[in-house]
Amino acid sequence: MTNDVVRDIGEQGVLKRLQRFCPSDIVGDDAAVMPNPEPGQLLVVTTDVLVDGIHFSDRTTSAEDVGWRAVAANLSDLAAMGSSPLGITVGLSLPGNVAVSWVERLYQGMSECLQPYNTPIVGGDVCYSPVITVSITAFGQVLPQHVMRRSHAKVGDVILVTGVHGGSRVGLELLLNSEFGKDLSDKERSPLIQAHQRPQPRLDVLPQLWEIIASQFPILNNNPVPDQPNHQGGFCTNDSQKKVPLTAMDSSDGLADAIAQICRASGVGAVVERNAIPIPSILPQLASPAQVWDWVLYGGEDFELVLCLPEPLAQVFVEKLAAGSAIIGYITSGTEVCLKDSTGMYADELLTLSRGFQHF
Amino acid sequence: MTNDVVRDIGEQGVLKRLQRFCPSDIVGDDAAVMPNPEPGQLLVVTTDVLVDGIHFSDRTTSAEDVGWRAVAANLSDLAAMGSSPLGITVGLSLPGNVAVSWVERLYQGMSECLQPYNTPIVGGDVCYSPVITVSITAFGQVLPQHVMRRSHAKVGDVILVTGVHGGSRVGLELLLNSEFGKDLSDKERSPLIQAHQRPQPRLDVLPQLWEIIASQFPILNNNPVPDQPNHQGGFCTNDSQKKVPLTAMDSSDGLADAIAQICRASGVGAVVERNAIPIPSILPQLASPAQVWDWVLYGGEDFELVLCLPEPLAQVFVEKLAAGSAIIGYITSGTEVCLKDSTGMYADELLTLSRGFQHF
Repeated sequence: MTNDVVRDIGEQGVLKRLQRFCPSDIVGDDAAVMPNPEPGQLLVVTTDVLVDGIHFSDRTTSAEDVGWRAVAANLSDLAAMGSSPLGITVGLSLPGNVAVSWVERLYQGMSECLQPYNTPIVGGDVCYSPVITVSITAFGQVLPQHVMRRSHAKVGDVILVTGVHGGSRVGLELLLNSEFGKDLSDKERSPLIQAHQRPQPRLDVLPQLWEIIASQFPILNNNPVPDQPNHQGGFCTNDSQKKVPLTAMDSSDGLADAIAQICRASGVGAVVERNAIPIPSILPQLASPAQVWDWVLYGGEDFELVLCLPEPLAQVFVEKLAAGSAIIGYITSGTEVCLKDSTGMYADELLTLSRGFQHF
Repeated sequence: MTNDVVRDIGEQGVLKRLQRFCPSDIVGDDAAVMPNPEPGQLLVVTTDVLVDGIHFSDRTTSAEDVGWRAVAANLSDLAAMGSSPLGITVGLSLPGNVAVSWVERLYQGMSECLQPYNTPIVGGDVCYSPVITVSITAFGQVLPQHVMRRSHAKVGDVILVTGVHGGSRVGLELLLNSEFGKDLSDKERSPLIQAHQRPQPRLDVLPQLWEIIASQFPILNNNPVPDQPNHQGGFCTNDSQKKVPLTAMDSSDGLADAIAQICRASGVGAVVERNAIPIPSILPQLASPAQVWDWVLYGGEDFELVLCLPEPLAQVFVEKLAAGSAIIGYITSGTEVCLKDSTGMYADELLTLSRGFQHF
């Protein structure tokens, strides 16, 4: 029985095996009645699609890790909106010769990633396809005053990252290339592999952020929730006194991409200081500086948050948030994103969107 | 420019072209802040995946029709839960050589299907895949007392269908096989083709159903909405006085499948009267009786609702609902679904799940 493939047990058989990963009172109908947002909170939704051979591969990613990463990518999108998760749905299409155990392990990995947040898999679809495709939609909730957007960056904001960049891409290189980093100890390898296989969505930083805002910007928390929240969150009004000062995006498509996207959406430019970008300390030993910086800026999948905040708020945030967060630059009135090096070792360079999008 | 393929303009280019199909205040971030359920309503969610070559094909389905049918399938799932739509997300993966115009026409078809319900496309994902895959997640809202489930069918309920079956499958046959039905007039062909290419989710019957229930079963509408609705809707309690008498599933996987699934989920059996099943009147002229009944029972994609209701309620419903609804059988204490023929022309036959699931 453990060698069953999906074709042997059919759609109904697969669904039966997957039931144990879903709350029994939610699944089993044409649609799922799922947890509502709490009163006063707004509903947030995001979708990510992962395709076998493009976003994951047997060489580097176990079924459990595919599941973990698919969920992590969606939870990271929720975190970037300032929201906490309520549930996910899974649209899975796959060939008939996939082992049933692979599918169970996929769901096991999803469940492991969801577990700390008590977030259920509320439903989905399983169907045939020539290529394994995992499409996850995640729902979350956010208070109107906590909605973070890409388009709110303002001149004078500083740019803050919640952790190191480059680790996930280097972890992938270790998995792909047995010659690469072969002198590393297990203790040195492990966190890099982990960064690739089991990235952590940064939902953990949100409560700290709200706490800091509550003490530094009391107006944001005292402002009443509107009866009819608009789609942009209650604070996106023309009243500049009320404007939410929070801008965020996750760095799933790379650090350079996140900064460039925020600048484009906000109609601003940025200066980033190369030496301020936190990277795993082992990286410079592993490859040429050009290669290392390519991984740090364009590698992607580190799933950190990139925030633009007033400097005093960012300073408190960096002090409170232990591991790896840092202010790496500031927003300008220009349109370009310039990477500078105060040590003079590297020439100035412009960061662009284009390299983050080679998906076709 | 009109000959552009996806590879030419990349992910950002595609997203830009698709923006006009989405509300500008909702899209553009890592996730979308979307319409909350109204106060007192529960959140409902469903996901469906369509794969090129499996669920649709260039031979029979234009890009607009792929979009329409993908949305219709999801809205039909919402209808089967008793819920009305709030929004959808679209996860689209596709090869680089797909025409940009194909993608735009896909979204055009989705928008056309959503338009009568004022339901927005609130977000999604576009990425590379060797095979076109459209994964849609739809959100809806439902009052706790209106939640319909597969598992609530009771002995004594009658089985009601909201319209004809077999039309979608015959429409497909007309598109696939130029010899088939070649003597039909355009007026005869057109509704069958339409049934396949532009199926209508039966959201329209819900308001009539609530109206009938409000007059026939006042206890259901007077019952207060619980402060903390559970996931099964407010009426799924142990108090039999309060139990919701509504059972529904859509017939997307075939009429036989829907009845069999309801019976399995409810732990009951059913008797279905063959001659009571409404079918398009032209069908008997088009193929052998065995073929016609195969299409009617197992063809699928008619997207009607199959309801199990107390008979008095069903009677009023059939009288009020003009085109095509009918009581086709009743629930029994057995475990089998028996198709009978009161005219004696056909032998009794058992309806099973198995034929509805040949997806792998």
